[in-house]
Amino acid sequence: MTAPNSIHPNSPGHSNRRLDVREGRVDLSHGGGGRAMAQLIEDIFRRHLDNDLLRQNNDQALFGPVRGRLVMSTDGHVISPMFFNGGNIGSLAVHGTINDVAMAGARPLYLAAGFILEEGLPLADLERIVIAMAEASKAAGVPIVTGDTKVVERGKADGCFITTTGVGEVPDGIVISGERATPGDAVLVSGSLGDHGIAILSQRDNLGFGTELQSDSAALHGLVADMIAAVPDIHCLRDPTRGGLAATLNELAAQSGVGMLIREAAIPLKPEVRAACELLGLDPLNIANEGKLIAICPAERAEALLTAMRAHPLGRESAIIGKVTKDPQQLIELETPFGGRRLLDWLTGEQLPRIC
Amino acid sequence: MTAPNSIHPNSPGHSNRRLDVREGRVDLSHGGGGRAMAQLIEDIFRRHLDNDLLRQNNDQALFGPVRGRLVMSTDGHVISPMFFNGGNIGSLAVHGTINDVAMAGARPLYLAAGFILEEGLPLADLERIVIAMAEASKAAGVPIVTGDTKVVERGKADGCFITTTGVGEVPDGIVISGERATPGDAVLVSGSLGDHGIAILSQRDNLGFGTELQSDSAALHGLVADMIAAVPDIHCLRDPTRGGLAATLNELAAQSGVGMLIREAAIPLKPEVRAACELLGLDPLNIANEGKLIAICPAERAEALLTAMRAHPLGRESAIIGKVTKDPQQLIELETPFGGRRLLDWLTGEQLPRIC
Repeated sequence: MTAPNSIHPNSPGHSNRRLDVREGRVDLSHGGGGRAMAQLIEDIFRRHLDNDLLRQNNDQALFGPVRGRLVMSTDGHVISPMFFNGGNIGSLAVHGTINDVAMAGARPLYLAAGFILEEGLPLADLERIVIAMAEASKAAGVPIVTGDTKVVERGKADGCFITTTGVGEVPDGIVISGERATPGDAVLVSGSLGDHGIAILSQRDNLGFGTELQSDSAALHGLVADMIAAVPDIHCLRDPTRGGLAATLNELAAQSGVGMLIREAAIPLKPEVRAACELLGLDPLNIANEGKLIAICPAERAEALLTAMRAHPLGRESAIIGKVTKDPQQLIELETPFGGRRLLDWLTGEQLPRIC
Repeated sequence: MTAPNSIHPNSPGHSNRRLDVREGRVDLSHGGGGRAMAQLIEDIFRRHLDNDLLRQNNDQALFGPVRGRLVMSTDGHVISPMFFNGGNIGSLAVHGTINDVAMAGARPLYLAAGFILEEGLPLADLERIVIAMAEASKAAGVPIVTGDTKVVERGKADGCFITTTGVGEVPDGIVISGERATPGDAVLVSGSLGDHGIAILSQRDNLGFGTELQSDSAALHGLVADMIAAVPDIHCLRDPTRGGLAATLNELAAQSGVGMLIREAAIPLKPEVRAACELLGLDPLNIANEGKLIAICPAERAEALLTAMRAHPLGRESAIIGKVTKDPQQLIELETPFGGRRLLDWLTGEQLPRIC
């Protein structure tokens, strides 16, 4: 057994120095399991994300028991740029997974966060990201209770990737699932579409059109709680992220073995999203959203659901946009403002890489 | 609203073609939320990982209720090379998170998996990885119930990163945590140290020494179940991954506010690991393991625990390696074979980047 000896003799020593968050950068030692990693965790992650469960300080968080059925969901976040109008990859990583948990009608309880960092990432950027996570998590009332950090060499990642996983509790009697859409059901959306995707596009260097548009990134579990309180028999909930409304409706139609008829004129769209899409040749119905949901419920409960949605700050522009049809081909038909019909297919290729 | 129209008109069309797993490569469309992504999920992920919960086909998995207390743990995997002697990044991602859950004494129940793929990754490589995950998950009896896939541009990741998250149930009466080490307690290890790290190093191009050594990557929850059945009052369990035995013992000492005295001669080491470490100037006690655990228990139960560990296939070489001491400085002292003592510190810099 030889004496401890690094094969990277030039790697910087970190022992007992405080992390230089203002000027420092992530280096490989921050992922090495030694003192530098412990310091990174202490000075950035624990400092900002602090809560009772994280403070257990083990490789796992212990909680519960939980009385009801549970859901679990995971989501990787690789958005580029990492900082954007309306948030950053940290707030997005919290909102995105809370929303996936909430789309089962569940109350999100806890989050786990796995970071993959590129060597050279400014520690100040990492701190901004972690602060945004902390704020989003606090505002949502869903603590980040455990985490992990890996560091890869420069050029082997792109700044920061964050995979968050959430668990939540499903209230008794709630059965919300993608295969429950039934012919005759109403289809609702909680607000204007395309805001997130167009906000991100507008900030990418190679598409320099100016807009004040903000990402709609938000945690929707409060809206969902109000919705199931008003209409416990909601059949489906899903957030139209990558692939937009088109992909989400096609997924639900395929899963339930139904078709849908959507009135194009009823779909809420911001004028600046409409304008940007016309300029770029994009369909806003393919664009990612991060703070909107699609709901499907029995037709006779649609007005009650709409009222509940509009009463919530994140659902003020909600609308009934169409209905579920009987269609063995599982097609989504769009009724145009002029009375014609076209198919709303999901995209075959890639439209907007790294939008979330 | 304009017609659907891709801003990447050259992106390949995938509709209705089966995935060409033998010759194909991951492209950006596989992360786009459209048809290509649905096909990737169907032809690789669902095909190999199939189980009742995954088949729910929602953005989250629904299960339970679970009667007892719960634990949750997450772990990112960025190992390089992705394929190694004794496993690949897929089996490692299953074992690693199962182990973090099991180190609370918990029975692992479910896993979630988040993939970040680099454009250009051969689909055949991805399938090998997913098959290894499926086999590891099946062998462990812990299904992968939900997942996510993101694709980033060539040069913005390194093949495949996998973040897995696990939940598990803690049996009544079991309280295993890093702050429970008490002066007088015995310290045990479940087998030889350094096998994983040295196996990976031996396969890296730039360190071309030959060895038949295999990674010890394995799921330890069965061993843990036998251990807590024999000695319910285990105080601490932890798997010495990044940073090796040295980092793990220092972490536990700091958390419990104790010191430790370890007998160097009692630590199991394979001759080829010892030889490789001498050649490379590494200390095997800093090297990562992926199928070993450290246990701390009351001294009077140590022999019973050792017997239970040795009776399990993954614990046959278990040993009592030392004891917890009263030490306000929280030092780990190593008693050398010649009767001297040296400090076992954790590393300050990085020794082996991307070892897990």
